[in-house]
Amino acid sequence: MGEFDLIARHFKRPVRRAALGVGDDCALLAPRPGMQLAVSSDMLVEGRHFFAGVDPDALGHKALAVNLSDLAACGAEPLAFTLALALPSADDAWLAAFARGLYGLADAHGCELVGGDTTRGPLNICITVFGEVPTGQALLRSGAQAGDDLYVSGTLGDARLALEALQGRVALPPALLAAARQRLERPTPRVALGQRLRGVASSAIDLSDGLLGDVGHVLRASGAGVRIQAKDASEWIAENAYGISASSLFDQDFLLQCVLSGGDDYELAFTAPAAARAKVAEAALQANTAVRCIGQIESAPGLRVVDATGRELTLPFLSFDHFA
Amino acid sequence: MGEFDLIARHFKRPVRRAALGVGDDCALLAPRPGMQLAVSSDMLVEGRHFFAGVDPDALGHKALAVNLSDLAACGAEPLAFTLALALPSADDAWLAAFARGLYGLADAHGCELVGGDTTRGPLNICITVFGEVPTGQALLRSGAQAGDDLYVSGTLGDARLALEALQGRVALPPALLAAARQRLERPTPRVALGQRLRGVASSAIDLSDGLLGDVGHVLRASGAGVRIQAKDASEWIAENAYGISASSLFDQDFLLQCVLSGGDDYELAFTAPAAARAKVAEAALQANTAVRCIGQIESAPGLRVVDATGRELTLPFLSFDHFA
Repeated sequence: MGEFDLIARHFKRPVRRAALGVGDDCALLAPRPGMQLAVSSDMLVEGRHFFAGVDPDALGHKALAVNLSDLAACGAEPLAFTLALALPSADDAWLAAFARGLYGLADAHGCELVGGDTTRGPLNICITVFGEVPTGQALLRSGAQAGDDLYVSGTLGDARLALEALQGRVALPPALLAAARQRLERPTPRVALGQRLRGVASSAIDLSDGLLGDVGHVLRASGAGVRIQAKDASEWIAENAYGISASSLFDQDFLLQCVLSGGDDYELAFTAPAAARAKVAEAALQANTAVRCIGQIESAPGLRVVDATGRELTLPFLSFDHFA
Repeated sequence: MGEFDLIARHFKRPVRRAALGVGDDCALLAPRPGMQLAVSSDMLVEGRHFFAGVDPDALGHKALAVNLSDLAACGAEPLAFTLALALPSADDAWLAAFARGLYGLADAHGCELVGGDTTRGPLNICITVFGEVPTGQALLRSGAQAGDDLYVSGTLGDARLALEALQGRVALPPALLAAARQRLERPTPRVALGQRLRGVASSAIDLSDGLLGDVGHVLRASGAGVRIQAKDASEWIAENAYGISASSLFDQDFLLQCVLSGGDDYELAFTAPAAARAKVAEAALQANTAVRCIGQIESAPGLRVVDATGRELTLPFLSFDHFA
């Protein structure tokens, strides 16, 4: 089966929102009047962002999820995406499963495939996603102000816990592994929350490389610092959701590392003025997504994590760096 | 040097046309009123689309050129692009040269880098490019009509001639090799011509996989066939530009194969009604790009190549298929 047949068979669909979809030299998008187009590209490499042999259905989901998470961090509504795919071989069953995972998430968000490229090569998935956001209302990294609260959505550290287990560095009970693995392989982009936070949050970012590293980007862009209260950080992990206490299995330092710098969370971190607490709670409720206040923005640059006694922790770990 | 430093050092620049560039979760684009956004993604893989060890300056040029060529085929004006890059190592000199080649072409077209991703992995370059086109005026593959002329811009087959030489299958005199290699490694996207053909051409496509294969896409999209006059096809190759007659070096079948199905030309093939011949000539003149009429669209489906005597040629070669 040739390249073009492959694309047509698994990925070509009529479009409803784009002016022109897959099948010509370009796709055509027409943002509605008063809207800007938010654009983000992420590249996923086998062995780096996912294990060789990972379930292609989960991979299809995750490849789009990490991009939708960027739209969420801007408060944008998903519109369309392009998919560029390098494959070591043209495996029909693999492509069918990948497309199933991809379209499952895409359809849930009304996000259409409008174009892309397929070629032979070491497995590599590059998605560019497009969303609409009212002009001037996108959430940026640069708006955090001293006195603002720092929030995170959902739970943190689960994906890293799964990664540590799958790589054989820790042992997890089967139920906990299954739940954590779901978070690693099928992250939930916080698209509804991001849109609800427009006009409420002063800054936002999505957590891909770990909380501390990603919040560091917000601090640099905003010219500010932060004090994070870590007295209950090990409870941020989704242990309650699993019905199993991860904190009874692991020492606090390990859990703290998963939570603060684990990476692959695809939750939102955002700031908002103290006066906006009720609006944040309302946005979380409307989006059906839990949020948690974990600290405050300060004018002094730097990232301070303090324990229950107010003592600053010295942290040996940093966020994940692909070239570290 | 860390991932984020690398990006900042070589690729981060202020934007002039986009609402927000590199450095946040998303870039923000705002097409002008009355404009649609044309979008195209291409992925280039080492060993497949370029040789290992190729000059990174040329690679930076080509990675963007193949995308700009898609915009040209739609008649769109380049606006911005994202760059996703997987690199086996973070080599500063390589990145500097790659960025030089990339920005050289980008700046010539006023096309801004607005975002992307960098990761470790087998060398892979995925660019998504954005252009503006007046609503409803994009050139499509689907508009060819029986009786239309079929044109190509520039010269065909040079890139394939260089590829054959670089892979040791043919020998070329140094001056011819240098000229052909320039066409392979630094193709010229026909951006100005594409824009001039709006309202003139009835269909267009850019030639990446070879003339016959790519024109085949136009025919399928348009529900038509074509008769191509190959009596002088071996003269379509840029021999005159080199001051050397390729036709004196090679047999006609080999040259015909380079021209008709060589690939990597990044010229435009387009159709226009016979009544529009003066307008086509005017567009070519304005864009300072040679065009050549090579055949006519017919209502009978299929692709017919005839020689000087009008006899239909039986062609053993097809267009390049990445999964063939």
